[in-house]
Amino acid sequence: VARGRGLTRPLGPAAAAVAVFAIGFAVSLLGDACHVASGTTRYPDGVARILLSAWWFPFAVALAVLGAAWAGRRMALPARPRTRLDAAAGVAAVLALYALTAFLRGTPPVVSVTLCSGLAFLVFAWWDPSPGALASALAAAVLGPLAEIGVVAIGAASYAPDASGLLGVAPWLPCLYFAAGAVASGLWRALAAPAAQYP
Amino acid sequence: VARGRGLTRPLGPAAAAVAVFAIGFAVSLLGDACHVASGTTRYPDGVARILLSAWWFPFAVALAVLGAAWAGRRMALPARPRTRLDAAAGVAAVLALYALTAFLRGTPPVVSVTLCSGLAFLVFAWWDPSPGALASALAAAVLGPLAEIGVVAIGAASYAPDASGLLGVAPWLPCLYFAAGAVASGLWRALAAPAAQYP
Amino acid sequence: VARGRGLTRPLGPAAAAVAVFAIGFAVSLLGDACHVASGTTRYPDGVARILLSAWWFPFAVALAVLGAAWAGRRMALPARPRTRLDAAAGVAAVLALYALTAFLRGTPPVVSVTLCSGLAFLVFAWWDPSPGALASALAAAVLGPLAEIGVVAIGAASYAPDASGLLGVAPWLPCLYFAAGAVASGLWRALAAPAAQYP
Repeated sequence: VARGRGLTRPLGPAAAAVAVFAIGFAVSLLGDACHVASGTTRYPDGVARILLSAWWFPFAVALAVLGAAWAGRRMALPARPRTRLDAAAGVAAVLALYALTAFLRGTPPVVSVTLCSGLAFLVFAWWDPSPGALASALAAAVLGPLAEIGVVAIGAASYAPDASGLLGVAPWLPCLYFAAGAVASGLWRALAAPAAQYP
Repeated sequence: VARGRGLTRPLGPAAAAVAVFAIGFAVSLLGDACHVASGTTRYPDGVARILLSAWWFPFAVALAVLGAAWAGRRMALPARPRTRLDAAAGVAAVLALYALTAFLRGTPPVVSVTLCSGLAFLVFAWWDPSPGALASALAAAVLGPLAEIGVVAIGAASYAPDASGLLGVAPWLPCLYFAAGAVASGLWRALAAPAAQYP
Repeated sequence: VARGRGLTRPLGPAAAAVAVFAIGFAVSLLGDACHVASGTTRYPDGVARILLSAWWFPFAVALAVLGAAWAGRRMALPARPRTRLDAAAGVAAVLALYALTAFLRGTPPVVSVTLCSGLAFLVFAWWDPSPGALASALAAAVLGPLAEIGVVAIGAASYAPDASGLLGVAPWLPCLYFAAGAVASGLWRALAAPAAQYP
């Protein structure tokens, strides 16, 4: 019945939600800065910015991450116990993949999609290869790009001509969302309760 | 004495052979598409194609993978029990490395070979760091490039001038075969019998 | 009380020190060859060379690696038992990251630093995510680039104009040193005593 302390102290729902939201916010700002700096994506002139992103972008991603993490918690994900260190590594892996996609302008789609598919599957297989996490990853791989296709359609953002082969967005975008959706699905419980304390 | 079902059902020899062949076929088609699309390799005009590959390429690779997997089974590889999920991750890792090599045109050989050597060793060390798997990986790293040197010599395929420093083939080619040979050596048993059912 | 043999034989202090020094020497020569071949770094004309490096470079790095490994041994690192195979994989990971940085000329700093930070953290989290290894990684991430800034300032080496945004050295340099410092901290004990024999 010992209560954990410091880095191993369990988090209540409000603190966990704030932590998940903050991670989504920070990762999206950093990753999107990679995309904007490399010219992979751009926002219309005049839109208010946070770092290199349109102001609404990190809020939208953070809310989506929070939603995926909340849904994952209800599905008792991750099915494989994951610690806070695992969570940090999962975030690092998604961030590295995010930055890697900033190198893919002008790359033939079969090359970029094969590379990102393989890496995204490795992230999923390492983090939590469960049916629930797979469902979350697949949902993210469909809904994320669909949302961005809508964003591009209304002119709120655009992908470079050499990185827009999937209805205006990048062909590797589903892979990035797949990896992010897999990790996000288990983020709440990995942060809220250290692995040893899973019920 | 329970018989597994669905994804965990053991496979008989014929089914396992078909599964290994199919994986070799699919991975070689996808990976080779990366090489052809990036201009790393090309086939003579007029040769019949499957996707972007000469028709004979996926058959040759699939047979080689089947041979390596069959030999590995006889050596009781993988020495470290591996599940079907591990097999999928191993295939994903080889595929990601395959796609990565499509980015290496014009790269100084020391850079491309150092990068691919490090990554190929990580695949081996993770998958099955046993003497048997090492032998399979080394055999593939020698025989695979030798076969491709022969293919190039008879004019059935060619590497781009900036990716052909090893007797007409790419200098990083042994690294790619090393990783593929390591994973292939344990593929049969990983697919045929889920890890928990190894004799 | 069995004494190990061959690959599992414990090493005495002198043999372990020689092994650590040799690894530092070899990795720095190979990695630096990537940097010189890609034009990322260059040495003044006329300086004596070992392969592509100025003669003093591998000695300096090998001594630094030896120092980090010796300090790590005194801190009883790695905190997570690591085998000689793990050590080989750790060296392969650092080498792959070293080679990867040779591709980053002209890349916007936010992209290269995000990519290398994520990968370096993954190396640390896998190798030995302990406070001691973190301290070693952070010390390396600060002291290594500082030393190189000094080397550049006295004209003994230089980074390409498109890879010198951090006081004359590359902005991703701290990430590379972070990963190297993490692995180096546990290298002595991982090599000297196979994991099963930790006291």
